[in-house]
Amino acid sequence: MPALPAPERAMTVAIVGAGPGDPELITVRGLNLVRAAEILVYDRLVAHELVLEARRAALIERDGLSQDEVNELLVKHGRRGRAVVRLKGGDPFVFGRGAEEVAALEAGGVDVEVVPGLSTITALPALAGIPLTARGVASEVTAITGTSADGDDLDYDRLAQTPGTIVIFMGLGRLEQIADNLILAGRPVDEPAAVISRLSLPDCRVHVGTLATIASVAEKAATPALVVIGDVVNRGARLPQAAGAEVGTRHGRNRLT
Amino acid sequence: MPALPAPERAMTVAIVGAGPGDPELITVRGLNLVRAAEILVYDRLVAHELVLEARRAALIERDGLSQDEVNELLVKHGRRGRAVVRLKGGDPFVFGRGAEEVAALEAGGVDVEVVPGLSTITALPALAGIPLTARGVASEVTAITGTSADGDDLDYDRLAQTPGTIVIFMGLGRLEQIADNLILAGRPVDEPAAVISRLSLPDCRVHVGTLATIASVAEKAATPALVVIGDVVNRGARLPQAAGAEVGTRHGRNRLT
Repeated sequence: MPALPAPERAMTVAIVGAGPGDPELITVRGLNLVRAAEILVYDRLVAHELVLEARRAALIERDGLSQDEVNELLVKHGRRGRAVVRLKGGDPFVFGRGAEEVAALEAGGVDVEVVPGLSTITALPALAGIPLTARGVASEVTAITGTSADGDDLDYDRLAQTPGTIVIFMGLGRLEQIADNLILAGRPVDEPAAVISRLSLPDCRVHVGTLATIASVAEKAATPALVVIGDVVNRGARLPQAAGAEVGTRHGRNRLT
Repeated sequence: MPALPAPERAMTVAIVGAGPGDPELITVRGLNLVRAAEILVYDRLVAHELVLEARRAALIERDGLSQDEVNELLVKHGRRGRAVVRLKGGDPFVFGRGAEEVAALEAGGVDVEVVPGLSTITALPALAGIPLTARGVASEVTAITGTSADGDDLDYDRLAQTPGTIVIFMGLGRLEQIADNLILAGRPVDEPAAVISRLSLPDCRVHVGTLATIASVAEKAATPALVVIGDVVNRGARLPQAAGAEVGTRHGRNRLT
């Protein structure tokens, strides 16, 4: 693919999702924008290989900045007509704060191009072999974020009634609390559960247990991690059925070619 | 990006998600595999620009073949050690049949590489400006497929109780039935609803209405289309609030560069 010319000037900032971790799982459009960037504001979790692709760009690591400071930075450089790319780990718009950055830029009079990233929830069936739905097993999937787990805006009694799969983003830190609450709300203790840690990366690991055991089984799992609860965990044709077993993703190839 | 060498031989078939429609929203890995393909089996819905990238490949359109015939084709060419790519529209593993093809290949002794595609549900907040969740509005999202809408495996009474967003894949053809059943189950008639048609493509359109009106508002919407039900529809900062209005996706640029 030949290098893209720089995108049109005139105050456009691109907010780009980097995908679940493997640098080759960014979109073609996202990579082209990174390569043409003059200013790259990136999350620490983003694959280092992607940051290295921004050869022309001044690099600004987002960590250590508040969300307000990030917003101000994007608006400032965007208004100067620079080719600014905000590269975000995971998917910035599914339980992410991408929408806040879009709103700040639009309030600042800067046009925004948003390029979605591959979400871990999409990558899950393909890479870890766990289908989100399966005929006769689950026909729905409900996704929540672990940051809702305090219960302020999460109704465990109702959540426990879903016949579908439950997927929890950023739920590893509160997994014991979440599992206990689901059991208290009537979910069976032996319901299959899995923690998929570092999906798409060479050190991806899948921890398999039940609602009663998953918090201890996955105690040492590395982040980022996704929690999946439901019978679909047992339907993963490609999933080793042992706790902590490694799944059959591509190994040892983690570079852009 | 330099052309990739052909992937290792020895009976590997790649199942690749093409993304929601815009050819640049395929992953870098997916495009590299398409370019190196010797046999490309593709869905009719896949962007034509992507099919054209497979310059070395014999092209086989999937439509007109049964799923069994597709499976046999993939196994046959895979066992011959050809570089086979199965390019699927949308995301093949979220309410798709990608898993069946994986199972057939593994049963046939052929290694499979799966490359996920960007799902419309992920692309939705970024491209149509409708957040799936929003603090104080919805903290959950439940996804179903319109093919469950006959009621065999869908419990409208329970579904209507979710406080979260409802997203329906392939639900356009049964939208009136689905909306009516949700209202009968107690969902308010004036609940916001949207149909996002041809997301990411130049002719993408968003139709906005309520549960009571959405089926008629979106009567002429083109497929593929996604249905979104919930207050988040009104939270789309970038969403024109008029029925049938066009959203601010990139226009007129629909080619791989």
